Amino acid sequence: MRHTISVLVENKFGVLARIAGLFSGRGFNIDTLNVAPTHVETLSRLTVVVKGDDSTLDQLIRQLERLVNVIEVKDFREGQAVDRELVLLKISADGKNRSEVMQICDIFRARIINVSSLDVVIEITGDEGKINAFLKLVEPFGVLEMARTGKLAMVR
Amino acid sequence: MRHTISVLVENKFGVLARIAGLFSGRGFNIDTLNVAPTHVETLSRLTVVVKGDDSTLDQLIRQLERLVNVIEVKDFREGQAVDRELVLLKISADGKNRSEVMQICDIFRARIINVSSLDVVIEITGDEGKINAFLKLVEPFGVLEMARTGKLAMVR
Repeated sequence: MRHTISVLVENKFGVLARIAGLFSGRGFNIDTLNVAPTHVETLSRLTVVVKGDDSTLDQLIRQLERLVNVIEVKDFREGQAVDRELVLLKISADGKNRSEVMQICDIFRARIINVSSLDVVIEITGDEGKINAFLKLVEPFGVLEMARTGKLAMVR
Repeated sequence: MRHTISVLVENKFGVLARIAGLFSGRGFNIDTLNVAPTHVETLSRLTVVVKGDDSTLDQLIRQLERLVNVIEVKDFREGQAVDRELVLLKISADGKNRSEVMQICDIFRARIINVSSLDVVIEITGDEGKINAFLKLVEPFGVLEMARTGKLAMVR
């Protein structure tokens, strides 16, 4: 099962390396991860998406909670939280098919943030379902580059 | 100086732990980091923002390039790239000040994605300047929770 885990940590040196080490030491492959400061200057929040069985993950969460510099660990189950991801995409699009790409962007409320004669850079946010539906539609044009932030989640 | 570094890696077990370890071993504190799969199933892209002096960072980039499972390392200098970040914010807002919060969201093209009688959850994307300006405006209402993805960058 896939889990989204949110970890509030103190902004101390090496915390990320320790947490990433804990996951890989336990045999968990991290699907996506992001970490950035919060509104409290001394704290950062880490959001991780991992696949794994529930009981091993429960153990791992207890280990995380015992780590120095870890303030709080939350395991989001489905429906409890709103989740969003940001994706930047460079799509092959010239004069001939640019308007079709723009139409798809309009429908998905995606934004074109750069354009050249051969390609466009698109910014889209949404939950997993929306992002995947969008990717499926623009893939035939040719994806030249893609960068995703990984999932961000917040309790409703 | 702050640098945004993009690292294309193979989706292999423990790669993130090794990269995070390399940064902390060199004394770099990671400001923000995100990692997620790309459009090529076997590859993930990692975007890191770090502060540090240029020459130590150049050494670190060369070390990164030599790591197994690392395909490509890009150091974005200002202006070369478009960059975006996604932020989820829970702001204290009741019937009295909700419309003011909504007004600010409108101006910044931020979206309210959940609402209760006491708070709203807001989704905003933008570059650092826009995000910071928005945060400054909504802070007086009371920030209850904040999660950021960290910067994502792409060559124009």
